[in-house]
Amino acid sequence: MSLDFGPAVALSCRECGTRYDLGPSFACLECFGPLEVAYSFGSVTREDIAAGPANIWRYRSLLPVPTDVTSKQNMNPGWTKLVKADNLGKVLGLRDLHVKDDSGNPTHSFKDRVVAIAVEAARNFGFHTLSCSSTGNLAGAVTAAAARAGLDACVFIPADLEQAKIAMARVFGGKLIGIDGTYDEVNRFCSELIGDPLGDKWGFVNVNLRPYYAEGSKTLAYEIAEQLGWELPDQIIIPVASGSQLTKIDKGFKELISLGLVEDKPYKIFAAQAAGCSPVSTAFKAGHDVVQPVKPNTIAKSLAIGNPADGPYVLDIARRTGGAVEDVTDTEVVSAIKLLASTEGIFAETAGGVTVGVLKKLVESGLLDPSLTTVVLNTGDGLKTLDAIADDAAPTAVIRPSLDAFRAAV
Amino acid sequence: MSLDFGPAVALSCRECGTRYDLGPSFACLECFGPLEVAYSFGSVTREDIAAGPANIWRYRSLLPVPTDVTSKQNMNPGWTKLVKADNLGKVLGLRDLHVKDDSGNPTHSFKDRVVAIAVEAARNFGFHTLSCSSTGNLAGAVTAAAARAGLDACVFIPADLEQAKIAMARVFGGKLIGIDGTYDEVNRFCSELIGDPLGDKWGFVNVNLRPYYAEGSKTLAYEIAEQLGWELPDQIIIPVASGSQLTKIDKGFKELISLGLVEDKPYKIFAAQAAGCSPVSTAFKAGHDVVQPVKPNTIAKSLAIGNPADGPYVLDIARRTGGAVEDVTDTEVVSAIKLLASTEGIFAETAGGVTVGVLKKLVESGLLDPSLTTVVLNTGDGLKTLDAIADDAAPTAVIRPSLDAFRAAV
Ligand SMILES: Cc1ncc(COP(=O)(O)O)c(C=O)c1O
Ligand SMILES: Cc1ncc(COP(=O)(O)O)c(C=O)c1O
Ligand SMILES: [Zn+2]
Ligand SMILES: [Zn+2]
Repeated sequence: MSLDFGPAVALSCRECGTRYDLGPSFACLECFGPLEVAYSFGSVTREDIAAGPANIWRYRSLLPVPTDVTSKQNMNPGWTKLVKADNLGKVLGLRDLHVKDDSGNPTHSFKDRVVAIAVEAARNFGFHTLSCSSTGNLAGAVTAAAARAGLDACVFIPADLEQAKIAMARVFGGKLIGIDGTYDEVNRFCSELIGDPLGDKWGFVNVNLRPYYAEGSKTLAYEIAEQLGWELPDQIIIPVASGSQLTKIDKGFKELISLGLVEDKPYKIFAAQAAGCSPVSTAFKAGHDVVQPVKPNTIAKSLAIGNPADGPYVLDIARRTGGAVEDVTDTEVVSAIKLLASTEGIFAETAGGVTVGVLKKLVESGLLDPSLTTVVLNTGDGLKTLDAIADDAAPTAVIRPSLDAFRAAV
Repeated sequence: MSLDFGPAVALSCRECGTRYDLGPSFACLECFGPLEVAYSFGSVTREDIAAGPANIWRYRSLLPVPTDVTSKQNMNPGWTKLVKADNLGKVLGLRDLHVKDDSGNPTHSFKDRVVAIAVEAARNFGFHTLSCSSTGNLAGAVTAAAARAGLDACVFIPADLEQAKIAMARVFGGKLIGIDGTYDEVNRFCSELIGDPLGDKWGFVNVNLRPYYAEGSKTLAYEIAEQLGWELPDQIIIPVASGSQLTKIDKGFKELISLGLVEDKPYKIFAAQAAGCSPVSTAFKAGHDVVQPVKPNTIAKSLAIGNPADGPYVLDIARRTGGAVEDVTDTEVVSAIKLLASTEGIFAETAGGVTVGVLKKLVESGLLDPSLTTVVLNTGDGLKTLDAIADDAAPTAVIRPSLDAFRAAV
């Protein structure tokens, strides 16, 4: 099998540094640490990038994908808007606030980014079926990408997800298996399936393809920096489920610095969780290095991972950069969704309510400096979590089509 | 009041050519014909456009907006993907098929384009409230844009719309009035309201701001041509509710030719309706020039305009270009949604089911040449019309997290 992973040269253990050939492996044989993609980057200039397409492939020379990736059948996500959020900034008392709005992706969440990379890895390894354990968004991203790539799909979700996420994970034509249990049980089940002949030639994007998949989140870092005029933000608020996205955004910023694409400068990374599933926030506040698993209970179902694989790295990064990990209640999530919608016209899913809610809380508690350039992520779409705003989802009034009726109603 | 409408210089009657100053007017005082924006274009090059932002403002020198529009608080829609749809093409027997996917817009329909222009007109005229009659998508686009622009919003819809569209029209914080009646009754009511003191200083995007609003659809023509490498498609399939979008896409193509931005060549415009609301298709097939109003009854609610203002122009354009007007049943709409999803990973709303369904029908009937470059529009988002696929919106199976249970299920 001849592999083409572009600038990627190996997998390397995040814990002990042991190197492995590029393959569908995810855990170190020496220490069980997670494997990461290692690169040998050529020279990369801002001009090369700017001349690329308006999607994540403008950064293909920094990603583990074939050089000719733009000619493949891929969803081509990314290059979503960085919205200058002056209205929201004014309400919260922030001078220079931006919303990175990933609801503009093909299946309306940031998961299209990670899946786009995993699809290329699956092709490289000759897998015929694309799979995942999902809190909702990933299932839709995987089944859509598989449809377009001509792969089979079979995805696994907790059976109690939002209706819109279930519908979206079905419409693209793959198999959708609901599991009676939490996400963490779904995930454990997928690990079993990988070891079973049933799962042979299956690419589980967030298990055996995880090292590749995870790299997709770096594109958020690249885009934010490029959209800020090739500058890093001073502060960024990122939602945390498994912690993968946050970890890779940090990696992306560091790569930009070491490649000389941005000036070296300090940045603070803040992690956001829902109070009903806040194992990382709890550990952060207690000063712990390990994350105690919890059983999730929150409307932010996309973030409901009680046993986050990259939790310890999130703690590290928040502490190293001078950031923090904070959580907000479901009530605060709903208020934050409405606040963002009514100030900026952006309809976020509950995960976006978590980040905006945490942003507000961090300003109020003084942990965030309101004078600095701040980016808050909206990683999903309000149309997928309509229940969160169901109380306010009816017309202000229903009337007959007459001026009198209208006058009476307003 | 000093107005800045960029290259726009006047309004002109589409029927009799009478000219009017730029203002919030929409009907000719001489003949009641619809008013259109007239321009004096400067020199516009492909390079100028390519150097612009990744949104509709790259075409600002062809639109009735202030020169500094990029510095305004606007949703900045557009520059959505033109997806090369080889999988769908193969199924349908088309050699070179593309889907213009406007679900990537901020509120996930093409309506963000037209509203973005209307907002700038509202600002120019000093209106404080943004309003519309809507079949669903427009209401969300207007309330979002108003929130971001700092305007009040009060929008009107038939009360029986899809839940997701109602929720989306509420979350941005404006007033949402449900009307017991059809869209055509909602629209008539809005015309009354404009004449009433209650509606003073209100910009109804698709009534008194309609000449400006409608120009937003030209950007679909511009983008498609630019994304095809500055070439017009040979054939294009466009959904029709009022017919405004189709009419302006034709105008956009003609402008590109007359400005020398693309080579002059013939193109065929095909109009798509749902059988349950197909007054234009009926007129086309009967060889009529006038459109007989109907009472809509279709799941394609966004296209449910029984008395389409621009219906006669649609007939003209389809006939002049050698295209056609066709319609499909609700069953065909649902099949087409699933076909597009399972081949290209694009989840369309019912309006996209209408265009893809009509595309299939036109190929089968031989009206469309399968060897030519063909573009089909998806103007909305499947997440807003989940009912259409409700029968298939459950997991394939729900199981306990065990390999045995999975084996039994598959
Ligand atoms: C919308 C959304 N945001 C954020 C996340 C968090 O991702 P991670 O597991 O990388 O922390 C998820 C994960 O499912 C998600 O769906
Ligand atoms: C998704 C969608 N597509 C197409 C249309 C048709 O627009 P027009 O009235 O310009 O024909 C509409 C109108 O509401 C719409 O919502
Ligand atoms: Zn190791
Ligand atoms: Zn006239």
